[in-house]
Amino acid sequence: MSASLTIALDAMGGDNAPAIVVKGADLARRRFPGVRFRMFGDENRILPMMKRRKRLREITEIVHTEDAISNETTVSVALRKGRQSSMQLAINTVRDGEAAGVVSAGNTGVLMAMAKLTLRTLPGIDRPAIAAIFPTIRGESVMLDLGANVECDSENLVQFAIMGEVFARTVLGTVNPSCGLLNVGSEEMKGHAEIQQAAAYLRQMTETLNFYGFVEGNDIAAGTTDVVVSDGFTGNIALKTTEGTARLITEFLGDAFRSSLSARLGYVLARRGLRKMRDRIDPRRYNGAVFLGLTGIAVKSHGGTDAFGFANAIGVAIDMAANRFSEKITEDLEAFGNFDPGPVEAAVS
Amino acid sequence: MSASLTIALDAMGGDNAPAIVVKGADLARRRFPGVRFRMFGDENRILPMMKRRKRLREITEIVHTEDAISNETTVSVALRKGRQSSMQLAINTVRDGEAAGVVSAGNTGVLMAMAKLTLRTLPGIDRPAIAAIFPTIRGESVMLDLGANVECDSENLVQFAIMGEVFARTVLGTVNPSCGLLNVGSEEMKGHAEIQQAAAYLRQMTETLNFYGFVEGNDIAAGTTDVVVSDGFTGNIALKTTEGTARLITEFLGDAFRSSLSARLGYVLARRGLRKMRDRIDPRRYNGAVFLGLTGIAVKSHGGTDAFGFANAIGVAIDMAANRFSEKITEDLEAFGNFDPGPVEAAVS
Repeated sequence: MSASLTIALDAMGGDNAPAIVVKGADLARRRFPGVRFRMFGDENRILPMMKRRKRLREITEIVHTEDAISNETTVSVALRKGRQSSMQLAINTVRDGEAAGVVSAGNTGVLMAMAKLTLRTLPGIDRPAIAAIFPTIRGESVMLDLGANVECDSENLVQFAIMGEVFARTVLGTVNPSCGLLNVGSEEMKGHAEIQQAAAYLRQMTETLNFYGFVEGNDIAAGTTDVVVSDGFTGNIALKTTEGTARLITEFLGDAFRSSLSARLGYVLARRGLRKMRDRIDPRRYNGAVFLGLTGIAVKSHGGTDAFGFANAIGVAIDMAANRFSEKITEDLEAFGNFDPGPVEAAVS
Repeated sequence: MSASLTIALDAMGGDNAPAIVVKGADLARRRFPGVRFRMFGDENRILPMMKRRKRLREITEIVHTEDAISNETTVSVALRKGRQSSMQLAINTVRDGEAAGVVSAGNTGVLMAMAKLTLRTLPGIDRPAIAAIFPTIRGESVMLDLGANVECDSENLVQFAIMGEVFARTVLGTVNPSCGLLNVGSEEMKGHAEIQQAAAYLRQMTETLNFYGFVEGNDIAAGTTDVVVSDGFTGNIALKTTEGTARLITEFLGDAFRSSLSARLGYVLARRGLRKMRDRIDPRRYNGAVFLGLTGIAVKSHGGTDAFGFANAIGVAIDMAANRFSEKITEDLEAFGNFDPGPVEAAVS
């Protein structure tokens, strides 16, 4: 990692801001020596928290802002009146090349809109997508879009596949990552027309992209492919269904261990292994959804996360910057562009 | 339960047919005294299995068929050439009033097509939907559509809500069941146009239907509403994502208990509670997806289930028949019809 890598932080976003941002930055500092922060927010609230964090204070430039975007702020109001907000100013720093990436736990819709307008989309990308890493039986995979685009056409889906592939390769370090299109059946004839068209197009790209074909909902956690591509509606439902199911089983597991004295003792004996298991599926560990398709790095932290989770979101931004994600995706989009077999519709046989 | 209730069984559907069908029927017979079966399939394979099942043999009429629908059979071929298949003949028995319902573990697409053509949709229902009961933190809920209709308009979604409500009330015994529409956010403005329109319509029906509003993926397992309504594409992805996540966590849990001698001992001590937990989420326990919206009862068993799972699918058909589901849904559709506020589009403010 470059010694001069700076990350811009929106200190005012998230349920427990600015505390989780300051504490999260302090955790990330220890994990990534050499990182520096530019923190945007209310100085009067941030500075007192820095008093006992001398090391963090030394590597952090605090930029005082009066304005902050709340979770209730609509996109249109935020874009009109939020130009001096901590979120917008943090994003500007990335545009101006003064920070390698920005992390915010604030309003997702506003963050996406501001990042898109300020950082702009990469050449060849119509719409950015939200991507995240998740645990699978085989290891880790990346899924996109998780909610930025409720409606997607086949060209969007193809672009998501390319971006997901580059992300898996450069950030996760996966060799020749496989891509799957989320569908209701693995048969060629099933699913929406857009998915059929995207699949037909991706099948023609097999020399450059390792397209697996269709995957189903159960393939996500199975890790059947390294990249799972879907429209933002379906991806968001799948992501949140996973969260809900994990919570249900954890709840039932708690009931099981409370069901008898013997079970309680069993829990104590198995505790170390169970903690390791909990860590493997800990949502805080996978915190940090990435906006792919922009000219700069923007990471959205879950609003309700804690310092450990926020530090992981910072880690995602640092990993992307250190692996030169933006440069690589630009190169790859050019390479993929050279294989362009014409409009997507023409690819359907 | 009426002493003369007969269930038609497609003995040739599923990965381990006819064995799981015969064994499943034998299990169901013990649970539901008074039930009778009419079993369609290859007599030469079924009869030997009956030799040691005298009690089952006494209550089962075997109808020999030469033809069976395989999983590879397409809908069009099945409809043209499958008129003498075990599946079609079993469905005919329901149409002719000789059986109260049909259960098959065969090809889902063909079963749906044959059931729809033979049993026809109820007045007021444009398309049948696939529904299933699933476990939640609060108890049990019902979700539909799970894959019958990849594309749905707002009227379909409204009809699904009504059918799901009647199912929860009559079969699960839920008092005033709440209905939620699956969406990417609980805010009113999010999601596809069809979902917005359906919600606007359902909001006007609050005197007859307990409409909760939008629910998200995590609300499914949380049991936020008693009925979860979605199009068949999204519902299928959500259902299979749940299965995949449950498998992932079960796998990780196994790793945890194998991680040390102490953890192994812990497992032994907690085993009874853990088994109870596994039972609570056992997919075999929730086997039996229902085709709602037809004039007769048709239940689809998972193709890969075992005798215990198939017996549960038979149980679903018996529960629906014993609770006079078909009569009640007809009454309720009439009642709901009286509240018709005009075309769905007009309901959007």
